[in-house]
Amino acid sequence: MRVADYIARFLERQGVTDVFMLSGTGSIYLDDALLLNGTLRYTCARHEAAAVVMAEASARMKCGLGCAVVTTGPGGVNAIGGLVEAWVDSCPVLVISGQVERRHYVAGTRAFGVQGFDIVEIARGMTKYASRVTVPERIRYHLERAAHLATSGRPGPVWLDIPTDVQRAVIDPEGLEGFEPDHADARPAIAASSLDADLEAIVGSLQASRRPLIILGQGVRQAQAVDSFLRLLEVTGAPFVSSRLALDVVSFAHPQHMGLGGIRGRRHVMRLMRQCDFALSLGASLSPAFVGENFDAFAPGTTVVMVDLDPAETSKAGVPVARRVHHDVKSVIEGLLSRIPRDGSPKPRAWLEHCQAEKQCHPTVIDLYRGDPINSYHFIERLEDHSGPGDVFVSDAGGSYYCTGQVLRFERRQRELTSGTFASMGVALPLAIGAAATDRNARILVVTGDGSIELHIQELKTVSQAQLTIKVFVINNGGYASIRDSQDAACGGRYTDHCEPLDFRKVAAAFGLSYHLLQREEELDAHLPAILAEPGPALIEVACDRAQEMIRPLDWTAIHDGEEPQ
Amino acid sequence: MRVADYIARFLERQGVTDVFMLSGTGSIYLDDALLLNGTLRYTCARHEAAAVVMAEASARMKCGLGCAVVTTGPGGVNAIGGLVEAWVDSCPVLVISGQVERRHYVAGTRAFGVQGFDIVEIARGMTKYASRVTVPERIRYHLERAAHLATSGRPGPVWLDIPTDVQRAVIDPEGLEGFEPDHADARPAIAASSLDADLEAIVGSLQASRRPLIILGQGVRQAQAVDSFLRLLEVTGAPFVSSRLALDVVSFAHPQHMGLGGIRGRRHVMRLMRQCDFALSLGASLSPAFVGENFDAFAPGTTVVMVDLDPAETSKAGVPVARRVHHDVKSVIEGLLSRIPRDGSPKPRAWLEHCQAEKQCHPTVIDLYRGDPINSYHFIERLEDHSGPGDVFVSDAGGSYYCTGQVLRFERRQRELTSGTFASMGVALPLAIGAAATDRNARILVVTGDGSIELHIQELKTVSQAQLTIKVFVINNGGYASIRDSQDAACGGRYTDHCEPLDFRKVAAAFGLSYHLLQREEELDAHLPAILAEPGPALIEVACDRAQEMIRPLDWTAIHDGEEPQ
Repeated sequence: MRVADYIARFLERQGVTDVFMLSGTGSIYLDDALLLNGTLRYTCARHEAAAVVMAEASARMKCGLGCAVVTTGPGGVNAIGGLVEAWVDSCPVLVISGQVERRHYVAGTRAFGVQGFDIVEIARGMTKYASRVTVPERIRYHLERAAHLATSGRPGPVWLDIPTDVQRAVIDPEGLEGFEPDHADARPAIAASSLDADLEAIVGSLQASRRPLIILGQGVRQAQAVDSFLRLLEVTGAPFVSSRLALDVVSFAHPQHMGLGGIRGRRHVMRLMRQCDFALSLGASLSPAFVGENFDAFAPGTTVVMVDLDPAETSKAGVPVARRVHHDVKSVIEGLLSRIPRDGSPKPRAWLEHCQAEKQCHPTVIDLYRGDPINSYHFIERLEDHSGPGDVFVSDAGGSYYCTGQVLRFERRQRELTSGTFASMGVALPLAIGAAATDRNARILVVTGDGSIELHIQELKTVSQAQLTIKVFVINNGGYASIRDSQDAACGGRYTDHCEPLDFRKVAAAFGLSYHLLQREEELDAHLPAILAEPGPALIEVACDRAQEMIRPLDWTAIHDGEEPQ
Repeated sequence: MRVADYIARFLERQGVTDVFMLSGTGSIYLDDALLLNGTLRYTCARHEAAAVVMAEASARMKCGLGCAVVTTGPGGVNAIGGLVEAWVDSCPVLVISGQVERRHYVAGTRAFGVQGFDIVEIARGMTKYASRVTVPERIRYHLERAAHLATSGRPGPVWLDIPTDVQRAVIDPEGLEGFEPDHADARPAIAASSLDADLEAIVGSLQASRRPLIILGQGVRQAQAVDSFLRLLEVTGAPFVSSRLALDVVSFAHPQHMGLGGIRGRRHVMRLMRQCDFALSLGASLSPAFVGENFDAFAPGTTVVMVDLDPAETSKAGVPVARRVHHDVKSVIEGLLSRIPRDGSPKPRAWLEHCQAEKQCHPTVIDLYRGDPINSYHFIERLEDHSGPGDVFVSDAGGSYYCTGQVLRFERRQRELTSGTFASMGVALPLAIGAAATDRNARILVVTGDGSIELHIQELKTVSQAQLTIKVFVINNGGYASIRDSQDAACGGRYTDHCEPLDFRKVAAAFGLSYHLLQREEELDAHLPAILAEPGPALIEVACDRAQEMIRPLDWTAIHDGEEPQ
């Protein structure tokens, strides 16, 4: 069996169903093994960065390992643009790159062989494991180690670089040395016994708190602790806010769910963050986008406890964290459940009612200008109302990112995929393709912008060729609206960029997609049902207001100026 | 003066005329400074990797420093795909990235601040200098050091990462500390006195050689030694072959010019490389693409002398290099000129005549099948015949790369830009834009393929919006032809990739370009003159044969099988 075929079989046994790739001479046997393997499906991307983002989406859809295969030299380097997404968003993706034959490898040179490049040196900085496989018989070890590290602890991407002569080397799959994970190594060097002390402290703070607030991060889903989290909500009676990557974990209809937090969160949420006296963050990173550029999302006296497996996350936060808990989120939640009596515990009813009243009084959409061109917040609201259970929302950067975060409610167990940490332009299309390829029954609703879509526009052809059920909604507001927004604030309204938006009717034609245009408010309810019901993919241009402002949370200005909110 | 404005002024004084960028909140003051600077022009790319490749083209056109400005996080990471091109092709490009404010920076975390990422750690592996500027008053030092390193010794890219609070910091431009290059450091640690020994040895070998062959690399142009090189040809009377990045340095009409060498070179050239008894490589890297996968482009007894500033290049070559000369190519050539008498020296006339006869007998195109669909070799030949002086050819990867290298003659001081080391798919469009923006009088003739064009297809809009004089010829041969070629050889003709080509008529419409289709041999001469004479940009689809084979050099099979050529 060739090493390449062993890799394909390994992926299959790991539960990988879909691999994303762009073929090349440097990965020729890896590519061929995907073709020959009868079980794995593979999707050909048209840019390697897109292939890695597709693999990330696939991993998220399955809560398992994703995989991308790219070629040597420029293939691997192009993939870096996608790799970083999996890195910062903690997603388990295995990237396998082809490499020139072993005898052509030379360390310390800019390039070697035909398209040889030392990609492992570069990838090391944004992976949990990166290695060149130079001994064919070590392939099992490297694959097992890479897959283990990608999916355990704080998840993240891993990279294996396989020279062509190793790809085609014939090995006996029996008797290969495997990898034995060292559990002590996989955890941060924190004594396990401190979990008890942490739990005592959290329970004490919770019971002493009059205005507790829980922060739901994606770590809860990654730890497979969603059910435990819901029980924690019951026993504590505390309201909670969500980080962006956890927004689809619990329906916004949940009476304790206050919605997306942070400086781009729902109108009322920063006010509640300022008002709480105890905040328990579960698997969220508390970045400045969440806690404010000046770390002032919480009032000075608030006790903040941060639960995160990665000590790097808790030490960087910048918020005055009272306690840093480096344990698995699931252990922490279940430990709390075992310590808090289910019924006898006092609940912060008045505070919860206050929060619920704020949530009720400050919906995102109700008092916005309605008219033509369309307000993007209205559009997102109508889109969600017309969406169905099982639909997957994919949100791109800038205005799309802000709107969807502030509007979507996920009341029907829908998923959302987005670039959570970076809000990177252009990742929506490859995320959508990865999701659609992995779950052929899902309908994918992409919300992108006329600026963002350009960065991976070549993938529209991947959508049309495979006839994936992806509806690409393009909010056309005349360019990079959120960058203009920043330039209004920082540069007196001097706009550097003058990129004209594309003609999306013609773009749809060029890439083989059917096209719809929504340009009047009334067309949303009139046309969305038919657009969504149509089988196959489509590109839908939504003509929005170039000058439309993004909603700022209440009290945002006061906080931003360093003043107390009223 | 803001640091950002100081940077713009510095670039201007460095002779940079054009900056390439994609705006962002993280680079907001850098972007603004470009807008406010009255002298620098800036071009907005639609992907950061493209911006860096454009800067590379600009650097090549001017034989000076190129510059790209990108934003933090995903902006910088996207740029990596372009950076590597400048790195492996030894091109002096300064990339300036925005970064989050200094107080949000944390080392050792996956991300920090709003879109903060430690790009310097990643960029270090493919730059000559990479640094985050944390002290506003050090900006002059960092800029001077970066520009010096980019352009001195073996050129290459450099990277400065500038936090937003540093970008907007106000400094007094007078009295800033500068950078004093340490000349001893800039050179490899080789005693200068050994130059004499090297020169003596080269002259000895040249005079002893009956069949000398010179190899012209881009190091000759980079050392501004083209005139000296031409004098060297005169005094030695030796034939020469060219590496890819030097192909446009001397006209193919030059009687000593044998054309592109290597395994994708002209038909007769590998035969001549096998036959020579002494090879003098001047600033070429002698990669396996040039000297053969098995390092057998030269016959066993051949004496090879390699002149290259970078010891890493001469030690990796794999060819049995008799002498490694780590001196500036110009010093070496001029040293040789001072040692070889202009007229009295014996010249290898019989050998040169033999080479000229081979060149005469084996033109690339003459005996190829002509007909419909068009043979891509014919197309390139006709295109060059109809081109004008001052036109710039830009060749993309795969079939485009091979055809142009084997056909183009550069008889009218035309330039070529291409991805020399990696032959990376998709770089042709941004290279063309960088060239056109830098020299507004030049006409740019892009030769790309239906596969390659997709990787930066968004830049077609940059072409049309700026109405740059770029003619984009797309060789449509039904997908990644050269990868299929490899799969025929290695995988029994199993093709992994099934990507359908785009409908280029509609692509042209979508991106606002006029469109032409060339699908019959006779249309080349009939229509090319008018297509080339039309002002502004255009996309021209050239319908080529899906099954057309690429020309292999004579004796290639014999060499490839390890046998002696006949």
